[in-house]
Amino acid sequence: MTSAAITLDPAPSAAQTLDGLLPLCAEALPAAERLVDAARASVLGIVAPSGGKIDADLLEANQTAAHGYAWMATYVEGLRQMLGWATRLQNSGELGEMEALMLQAAFGEYLAQLVGGVPLSQVEIVRPNDLGVPAEALAAYRTPAVTTLIDQGATSAVRLRIAELVAESHSFGKLALEDETLDMIRDQFSRFAQDVVVPHAHGWHERDVLIPLEVVEQMAELGVFGLTVPEEFGGLGMGKTAMCVVSEILSQAYIGVGSLGTRSEIAAELIRLGGTQEQKEKWLPKLASGEILPTAVFTEPNTGSDLGSLRTRAVREGDVYKVMGNKTWITHAARSDLMTLLVRTDPTSTDYRGLSMLLAEKPRGTVENPFPAEGMTGSEIEVLGYRGMKEYEIGFDGFEVPAENLLGGVEGQGFKQLMETFESARIQTAARATGVAQNAMELGLKYASERVQFGKALIKFPRVAAKIGWMAVETMLVRQLTYFAGREKDEDRRCDIEAGMAKLLAARVAWSNADNALQIHGGNGYATEYQISRVLCDARILNIFEGAAEIQAQVIARGLLGRRN
Amino acid sequence: MTSAAITLDPAPSAAQTLDGLLPLCAEALPAAERLVDAARASVLGIVAPSGGKIDADLLEANQTAAHGYAWMATYVEGLRQMLGWATRLQNSGELGEMEALMLQAAFGEYLAQLVGGVPLSQVEIVRPNDLGVPAEALAAYRTPAVTTLIDQGATSAVRLRIAELVAESHSFGKLALEDETLDMIRDQFSRFAQDVVVPHAHGWHERDVLIPLEVVEQMAELGVFGLTVPEEFGGLGMGKTAMCVVSEILSQAYIGVGSLGTRSEIAAELIRLGGTQEQKEKWLPKLASGEILPTAVFTEPNTGSDLGSLRTRAVREGDVYKVMGNKTWITHAARSDLMTLLVRTDPTSTDYRGLSMLLAEKPRGTVENPFPAEGMTGSEIEVLGYRGMKEYEIGFDGFEVPAENLLGGVEGQGFKQLMETFESARIQTAARATGVAQNAMELGLKYASERVQFGKALIKFPRVAAKIGWMAVETMLVRQLTYFAGREKDEDRRCDIEAGMAKLLAARVAWSNADNALQIHGGNGYATEYQISRVLCDARILNIFEGAAEIQAQVIARGLLGRRN
Ligand SMILES: Cc1cc2nc3c(=O)[nH]c(=O)nc-3n(C[C@H](O)[C@H](O)[C@H](O)COP(=O)(O)OP(=O)(O)OC[C@H]3O[C@@H](n4cnc5c(N)ncnc54)[C@H](O)[C@@H]3O)c2cc1C
Ligand SMILES: Cc1cc2nc3c(=O)[nH]c(=O)nc-3n(C[C@H](O)[C@H](O)[C@H](O)COP(=O)(O)OP(=O)(O)OC[C@H]3O[C@@H](n4cnc5c(N)ncnc54)[C@H](O)[C@@H]3O)c2cc1C
Ligand SMILES: CC(C)(COP(=O)(O)OP(=O)(O)OC[C@H]1O[C@@H](n2cnc3c(N)ncnc32)[C@H](O)[C@@H]1OP(=O)(O)O)[C@@H](O)C(=O)NCCC(=O)NCCS
Ligand SMILES: CC(C)(COP(=O)(O)OP(=O)(O)OC[C@H]1O[C@@H](n2cnc3c(N)ncnc32)[C@H](O)[C@@H]1OP(=O)(O)O)[C@@H](O)C(=O)NCCC(=O)NCCS
Repeated sequence: MTSAAITLDPAPSAAQTLDGLLPLCAEALPAAERLVDAARASVLGIVAPSGGKIDADLLEANQTAAHGYAWMATYVEGLRQMLGWATRLQNSGELGEMEALMLQAAFGEYLAQLVGGVPLSQVEIVRPNDLGVPAEALAAYRTPAVTTLIDQGATSAVRLRIAELVAESHSFGKLALEDETLDMIRDQFSRFAQDVVVPHAHGWHERDVLIPLEVVEQMAELGVFGLTVPEEFGGLGMGKTAMCVVSEILSQAYIGVGSLGTRSEIAAELIRLGGTQEQKEKWLPKLASGEILPTAVFTEPNTGSDLGSLRTRAVREGDVYKVMGNKTWITHAARSDLMTLLVRTDPTSTDYRGLSMLLAEKPRGTVENPFPAEGMTGSEIEVLGYRGMKEYEIGFDGFEVPAENLLGGVEGQGFKQLMETFESARIQTAARATGVAQNAMELGLKYASERVQFGKALIKFPRVAAKIGWMAVETMLVRQLTYFAGREKDEDRRCDIEAGMAKLLAARVAWSNADNALQIHGGNGYATEYQISRVLCDARILNIFEGAAEIQAQVIARGLLGRRN
Repeated sequence: MTSAAITLDPAPSAAQTLDGLLPLCAEALPAAERLVDAARASVLGIVAPSGGKIDADLLEANQTAAHGYAWMATYVEGLRQMLGWATRLQNSGELGEMEALMLQAAFGEYLAQLVGGVPLSQVEIVRPNDLGVPAEALAAYRTPAVTTLIDQGATSAVRLRIAELVAESHSFGKLALEDETLDMIRDQFSRFAQDVVVPHAHGWHERDVLIPLEVVEQMAELGVFGLTVPEEFGGLGMGKTAMCVVSEILSQAYIGVGSLGTRSEIAAELIRLGGTQEQKEKWLPKLASGEILPTAVFTEPNTGSDLGSLRTRAVREGDVYKVMGNKTWITHAARSDLMTLLVRTDPTSTDYRGLSMLLAEKPRGTVENPFPAEGMTGSEIEVLGYRGMKEYEIGFDGFEVPAENLLGGVEGQGFKQLMETFESARIQTAARATGVAQNAMELGLKYASERVQFGKALIKFPRVAAKIGWMAVETMLVRQLTYFAGREKDEDRRCDIEAGMAKLLAARVAWSNADNALQIHGGNGYATEYQISRVLCDARILNIFEGAAEIQAQVIARGLLGRRN
């Protein structure tokens, strides 16, 4: 860390792409990987002291170290995906100055954070020391490539140049999707979002109303709900990357609209992966067409993160299950036709093994009469953001579900069926977060370009431009990380680690972008009239649902620590 | 940074106060001060290259470096105040395990951030490298005391032990006010807040109503509005520390109530420091008694941070000024009797030199008819939080103010009068932020103690406890930093640097505490029914008003860089 080489002049034009940038990053990456390996070894030494299985109590007692490791691994995966992205662009001759500087800044900043401190949250910064990483590993990390990137990769000048480039071009880096269909889909949904969603989103939020059914129907026509459903069952049979692209674009316009597909994705994925042939034939076409809107009924008042311990009972009586118990936080519960309902069928069990998934039909409700079904009541929960579908508490008292609607036809499979499905849901959530992050950044950039203070546009002030510049980098990074998780899932491999990484980091980026885009708005950011005030509220959910940040880190840590080398 | 000495077992009981802690901190502090000096020298080398006056353009171009330096200096001032606090406690025999560990953790974490990276915001982490701090200065920083504190000061075990102690005792560290009157006042206002404010605050926010006048009247009786007004003018004649204590306690109950006194403080301070004898006699007693509720009318639609360039004109016509122009973001504008109104009296000027402050009386308005005054109109601005007084846009069209109500009787003094006053206002805002931070922490702790997941209270999970532990430390640190600024102001010294530091850091801590206390609430944190959802919204204002974070850093940087050595 010599300072001799440092130029502090942040005149954006002075920002230089480092010589041989891609090879430099390619050289630095293995050093970062080795640091993460050292972190893993160190944490394993603590949580599996005998060298064998992980001791659950030790893992819990050393949560911060384990989660810190998960975050470090997430950073490195993010860098790997950024490098992959830049390499694809270079190969196709599309790597411009903006993309190169984004790659460079991502490496510069994250390589520095890996040793200087990774913020798991605003009040928890974890450093290698906290994981017991040995001094030799830290010394070995500082290869010439790593040092160059830390010292010169993400300077103020680089961030300002990125901000200047995005402000001038109003583009935020090429995506490198390398798939014409995806590009087409992106354009199509972009137009839809601009025309049908953007002009109304803020009003829906402010009036706290359901997204109009006509919008849902238009989305159905565009194929949103059947995007990843196999063609044989009436869907478009596309991969998870398509899901990411669509979810991101719609969420950029409004998280509520980008989330309309989430429950369909969950239901369809549950049935696709775990359903019987009859169930697939019966439900998938109607889910794909949007004729059936499903809702995901898992969480209970006493059971959120620890879903495996849930209590809602389903008792088989002849041809039906009778359901008793309370659920909460059920999104879009009233205006939906089908519940994917996680219940306990084995009364002797207390953990995940006694759970089953029911496909429970219900009549659609209205705002006045949300749950017009026998054995079922419910009431709305008022929320900060993420409106447009509404959340409900639900009580079941003898509500009946035909026994044939047991997913897969075998009891006790519910939790694992759901966990597999959560992989998709988390990837989709990461895409939603990316969209929210992009929206926040664009709102911030627009305001900064228009608002004048001290005689110039805010974007001309380094503190404002630096915010925009870094937002552009991190948004691209989580986008690429999300696509990566999508591609992994398309291979039908277990990918809770990759999905968790994308969800974890994208949620943080959505939140930090929203927070800082609001800051750029000054007082106006605090006025409910300005969109950014809503985006802040919307962004706050992403660290909580679909597995809270701490749970996501836990899933990643357990997954990575448990892997054989 | 050897790892041999590190014990990662975070069993709280294993956390040890380091041997000779206070001397160790006292030894580390000068090293931190030298690092900050090196940062100053480096930044000065950039912004005043000829060694003389600071070049404003260079300062602006190198804002991130300059602000990074301001933040580093703020951290070190915070540590200095923590050490002073602990020393006072030790001298009085009151330094317990909790306070000792708080001191230790504050040093451990901030000393690490000083080199590892200081988050100016969630998207801007500044490291010594970004300031051009030379390698030798970094090496010199790593004295044995600094290294010990970085390696062992703020370990997971320490944070968890602090959390355990606050959870058990439900106390958060002794204050070391060393003043019985202040302790008494604190108790008195604590009771008032518990009885009169806490039960209703959330309802006021949810219904978005004005805080009832009876509450304002009770506060007046308690002396809130005359706290710092000299006794000869009907006040209690207390110092700024008393103002801090009261503001904090009230804001902990509800930021709206803790902010009711802000405008009275601003008006009284303006008049005390800048008014004529007649003006003091006329206004101060009524301000002190709460008979007159004032409002602060400075910001304009096009002029927020750059207040000096404001446009609202006041034209002298005989015995009156006629006011023309638009103001915005005026808190408590309708239900108030007196405006401290910043206007341009010199039409040939464009900067701060042509501004004057008017004491402009107005009739109190109602919600239906907010501005029943000739030449004045206005409308409400809906906001995310900080409710209870309401914010307004105001238009003046020939509104008349008697010429005798020109503050100090001389034109062109308005801006400097205000700047001196802002010092108090910012200290008071730092105290408000501390109260909000404390409230968030307590809400988080309560929820974490009651909510069970995976078979145990959330507080038993290290990731949750670590959050609480660090919140307790940082909240105490900004409290002590705020008291310090208050004591400086009591000396009637210019203290925009100290006030700015307290405001800057306390606002960040209020926000990070609110964010993380909400995270601890999981989904329930997102329900508007839970208080923490409001506290998050309330906390967000603190980084924006009374000088946004970036402006505060600028004030500190300019002040420190401009000082003679
Ligand atoms: C707007 C919204 C919409 C939702 N929609 C749906 C829906 O449609 N269907 C549905 O089923 N659910 C839904 N949920 C519920 C959501 O999935 C849960 O809120 C989430 O899983 C967290 O559970 P919880 O709220 O009970 O928090 P808790 O589990 O009580 O967690 C509280 C806090 O403690 C932390 N924590 C918990 N356990 C541990 C541990 N072992 N170690 C460290 N930290 C821990 C958490 O990370 C969190 O920060 C929704 C929630 C919201 C707010
Ligand atoms: C709820 C609320 C209550 C308020 N109450 C009052 C009141 O009672 N009376 C009153 O007079 N005012 C009041 N204000 C106004 C408040 O003081 C201003 O909002 C604040 O000073 C910031 O000004 P602005 O909103 O115009 O933001 P801007 O000045 O436009 O700033 C926008 C962003 O740009 C940044 N920025 C600006 N200049 C620079 C620069 N040179 N370098 C780097 N960054 C820069 C800022 O830090 C901020 O992040 C209130 C505001 C709010 C939201
Ligand atoms: C915490 C949490 C990760 C799991 O906790 P847990 O109770 O310790 O469960 P485990 O991780 O031990 O998993 C239980 C079983 O499911 C399996 N499983 C878990 N994730 C899986 C996946 N992605 N694919 C396949 N199987 C999986 C495990 O292998 C284990 O099976 P085994 O015992 O045969 O090995 C889970 O409860 C969770 O995700 N909570 C958050 C809830 C949420 O996201 N809600 C959103 C509602 S919208
Ligand atoms: C940005 C800001 C700090 C000043 O910017 P500026 O226009 O560059 O003004 P300066 O700092 O140069 O100050 C102008 C004059 O006031 C003086 N001054 C500034 N702060 C002072 C203080 N605390 N005490 C005494 N004098 C002060 C300066 O010395 C200077 O006088 P000089 O030219 O004779 O030396 C100021 O506009 C500000 O605080 N903005 C935020 C607005 C705000 O907080 N609004 C809240 C409304 S609720």
